[in-house]
Amino acid sequence: MSNEFVKVIPLGGLGEIGKNITVIEYDSEIIVIDCGIAFPDEEMYGVDAVIPDISYLLENSEKVKGIFLTHGHEDHIGSLPYILKQINVPIYGTALTLGILKTKLEDNQTLSNCTLNVVKPGEIIKFTNLSIEFIRNTHSIADSCSLAITTPEGVIIHTGDFKIDYTPIDGLTMNLERISEYGKNGVLLLMADSTNVDRKGHSLSEKTIGKTFNRIFSNAKGRIIVSTFASNIHRMQQIIDSSVMFNRKVTFSGRSMENISEVSKELGYLNIPEGFSIDIDEINDYPPNEITIITTGSQGEPMAALARIAYSSHRKITLLPNDLFILSSSPIPGNEKLISRIINELLKKGAEVIYKDLEDVHVSGHACKEELKLIHNLVHPKFFLPVHGEYRHLKHHAELAEELGMKKENTFIIDTGDVLALKDDKAAVIGKVKTGSVYVDGLGIGDVGSLIIRDRKNLAQDGMINIVVTLHKESYSIIAGPDVITRGFVYAKESEELINEIKAIATKELNNCLEKKIIEWYVLKNNVKRAIDRFIYEKTKRRPIVFPMIMEI
Amino acid sequence: MSNEFVKVIPLGGLGEIGKNITVIEYDSEIIVIDCGIAFPDEEMYGVDAVIPDISYLLENSEKVKGIFLTHGHEDHIGSLPYILKQINVPIYGTALTLGILKTKLEDNQTLSNCTLNVVKPGEIIKFTNLSIEFIRNTHSIADSCSLAITTPEGVIIHTGDFKIDYTPIDGLTMNLERISEYGKNGVLLLMADSTNVDRKGHSLSEKTIGKTFNRIFSNAKGRIIVSTFASNIHRMQQIIDSSVMFNRKVTFSGRSMENISEVSKELGYLNIPEGFSIDIDEINDYPPNEITIITTGSQGEPMAALARIAYSSHRKITLLPNDLFILSSSPIPGNEKLISRIINELLKKGAEVIYKDLEDVHVSGHACKEELKLIHNLVHPKFFLPVHGEYRHLKHHAELAEELGMKKENTFIIDTGDVLALKDDKAAVIGKVKTGSVYVDGLGIGDVGSLIIRDRKNLAQDGMINIVVTLHKESYSIIAGPDVITRGFVYAKESEELINEIKAIATKELNNCLEKKIIEWYVLKNNVKRAIDRFIYEKTKRRPIVFPMIMEI
Repeated sequence: MSNEFVKVIPLGGLGEIGKNITVIEYDSEIIVIDCGIAFPDEEMYGVDAVIPDISYLLENSEKVKGIFLTHGHEDHIGSLPYILKQINVPIYGTALTLGILKTKLEDNQTLSNCTLNVVKPGEIIKFTNLSIEFIRNTHSIADSCSLAITTPEGVIIHTGDFKIDYTPIDGLTMNLERISEYGKNGVLLLMADSTNVDRKGHSLSEKTIGKTFNRIFSNAKGRIIVSTFASNIHRMQQIIDSSVMFNRKVTFSGRSMENISEVSKELGYLNIPEGFSIDIDEINDYPPNEITIITTGSQGEPMAALARIAYSSHRKITLLPNDLFILSSSPIPGNEKLISRIINELLKKGAEVIYKDLEDVHVSGHACKEELKLIHNLVHPKFFLPVHGEYRHLKHHAELAEELGMKKENTFIIDTGDVLALKDDKAAVIGKVKTGSVYVDGLGIGDVGSLIIRDRKNLAQDGMINIVVTLHKESYSIIAGPDVITRGFVYAKESEELINEIKAIATKELNNCLEKKIIEWYVLKNNVKRAIDRFIYEKTKRRPIVFPMIMEI
Repeated sequence: MSNEFVKVIPLGGLGEIGKNITVIEYDSEIIVIDCGIAFPDEEMYGVDAVIPDISYLLENSEKVKGIFLTHGHEDHIGSLPYILKQINVPIYGTALTLGILKTKLEDNQTLSNCTLNVVKPGEIIKFTNLSIEFIRNTHSIADSCSLAITTPEGVIIHTGDFKIDYTPIDGLTMNLERISEYGKNGVLLLMADSTNVDRKGHSLSEKTIGKTFNRIFSNAKGRIIVSTFASNIHRMQQIIDSSVMFNRKVTFSGRSMENISEVSKELGYLNIPEGFSIDIDEINDYPPNEITIITTGSQGEPMAALARIAYSSHRKITLLPNDLFILSSSPIPGNEKLISRIINELLKKGAEVIYKDLEDVHVSGHACKEELKLIHNLVHPKFFLPVHGEYRHLKHHAELAEELGMKKENTFIIDTGDVLALKDDKAAVIGKVKTGSVYVDGLGIGDVGSLIIRDRKNLAQDGMINIVVTLHKESYSIIAGPDVITRGFVYAKESEELINEIKAIATKELNNCLEKKIIEWYVLKNNVKRAIDRFIYEKTKRRPIVFPMIMEI
């Protein structure tokens, strides 16, 4: 079928952080790379999570051969518990990636129908036209891969999230040789991680942190409590290694930490020597200087273990004098204040706290400029599509490719939904498919949209005023009310006068209408609302939402 | 009166960022240092600003001799337009500080009664027991001062906000000699800026940025639009200097930028050579490469000039291809996402954008560790009270003092409201006065409190459901309703079934009561609310606020 294109369609993750999902399509075959979640902005009031709109996959469901996961981070696998309910296709990923996914699917009781195929790096999954090779890379989670997708029009390399760590904790370096081999044979399109394109130089190896841990551990007199991302198994391993070196037992706190450490131990990704792993209930059986606790909550999440320890609401861990906390993470933008509050609280209660400003207790998992240059150099593709980043990252990454010699017209800064078509060594954006953000709120998926968010925002800003009145239709008269209830606006007791003025205005507006025999509820409501809106704004310069509710008998 | 203490009472600014205000009291005299504003957290729904509770000053108003301003930043002068309405006392500050204050007071129509006393660095203001010397320092605003307060019990040095810039733009270095002189004669208490105590080394001089500007300006082909803090007059001067060097006219956009540049020019703090200053309406009379625009909005504020240019809603500035934007600032924690969005938007529209990650276009105005050590060394006070910072900064600053040889018991980490008493070379916290945060919302000052904020938060989270019904008292029956209106919960049209279920539940609960001749409105409301809360949570896992409103006739 020589008139077929290869189509590359990002359904999320371009021009935004998170929600990574990309479609690769040829003829009757679609493969999907990743299926991540995005975390809601503070303006998305009440929204728990943001998942991609997969209308395009549902419309082409018979074509979808599988979802290929590069690694086990939330922004790459987190939407699957929702998406798999809509479209049940086989999942492919490495052992740890699928192990982590399994814990999430078990939570959601949708596992029973799902096919999870464990793939080893180096393995190739073949369909009629598309075949996918998993290539080991290094990242802030173990068992992470780049993908090489061979299509009838040429090879696509998708780096996934990666950094180049020459001394990874598990000794398994990125398979640059294999990438180089693809490069040598000719690559049609490179899609590469743009997260840290603004950072000069080269990321530091995860191993550098181990040295810092050893130094800190060697001086600690009480318990050591380290919070980090639950998925960062190599970080966990280094904390365990330092603990063993200084004769400390290790335990885990926080649901995802417990789940992921369990899976990682089972699958052999995390090694705790005999006798060093203890249950959280045993922490008081040892002197404090023989205890290490690894917890969730490094982003300041109010319900996570770290915050609960800080605010004395953890069921099993009570803060002790001489406790030493290590926040082994970087604040994700937006979380700085939450984290700051926890640090202050811990210090106030007498603990010591070490965080990134004070010691080198965190490194990034994403490639900086020089690492990206290396990948571009090895792959030297015909076309380049920067992925995983906001617009500025994509743009700077495209500029980097140009600096390295690529023609500007061969780089593509595209948006989610754009269809990049590749054929006969040419590439062009040929259309757009439906995509977008679907909000998850409680049990609802997609039932909360922008209008509801706008209402929540308005309610949050200045509160609300309910005005309720009962009219007698036949006599054109008010027979009960108006009653006024406010929330988030003023204290009723201290504002009796204001409330009475509101009642008086409502009464006046209603009587004006009723005298003219006007009883259409929308006219009445409108007049009351307008008069009270104006009165309140003049009086307070605030704009609470005014709800006139009119009953008729 | 030898049984008098010197009292130092911070009414804000300790254990928090912003809202700086400190009371120094001896016998019948009180002087106040600074009177700043704090910016609301994102959790303070609808709050415009946070000002200090000055009950203590109002109770002792006859003692208050004046408010002494260290410099003209919002977090040091911003509460005055509100506070001066409550307590009208003389204000003392340097020319620029008072010039900036004046523009704010004019906005608020309270200027007429206020006494603003311009003080020159080196000048001493004397009262019966207290005398205050203004000592020039360097900071990210011109005309900034530290204060030396001489009391019957000894000298107090308050650094104000400062850094040590040996090459300030105006050539006026910090008067370390005078501070050293005080140190030599003996200082009782040092109060020093703790903002950057976590940063190693020494802050960079403001002058370093000028070189970066020159390099960037030398390559720019279109207009240059620089956003920075309106109060950073030295930054403005450097932008002007680079503009003049590369033959660009300069104009200002944004209210505070226009106000402060005007005041600074008038007072001689900002120098624009003849012919280089143009009105914003003239920008199209020159080729783009002869124009520099200095704007507000470097923190991403949605209503400020920069955002309006980015989102094409600026009345006078339309984005041009080849426009070069420079964000000459650091994001204040919490503002990263707003700023990121603007950068992305500008890039999408074809402009070039330079920000701190890419070039050295900003330096901090606060002293780092080595600068703080110098001040401690010169002053070598008997007691130390770290100020201006969260708890962690105060703690680390106290630890720094200890490292430099001070006894731990001579450092005081205190909270706002704590009364630190000094007498006979002894110091102790002897009590607490009423303080706190007062919220400004629209025209209301202090009428919005924590309960209202909690209601707003709950409304923001899951919206609300109004249920209104009219009962006939004598017959114990429903005669109109229940009617249901929701906002921020579900779309009414798509949730007709759910709304009907809510109505049915309300009807059932009401009838249950009415059958038993129960008509007490609080019982009826309670039963309806409880039943619907439960139903909604089971069905949706959300918790909208349910308002049953019952009318009787």
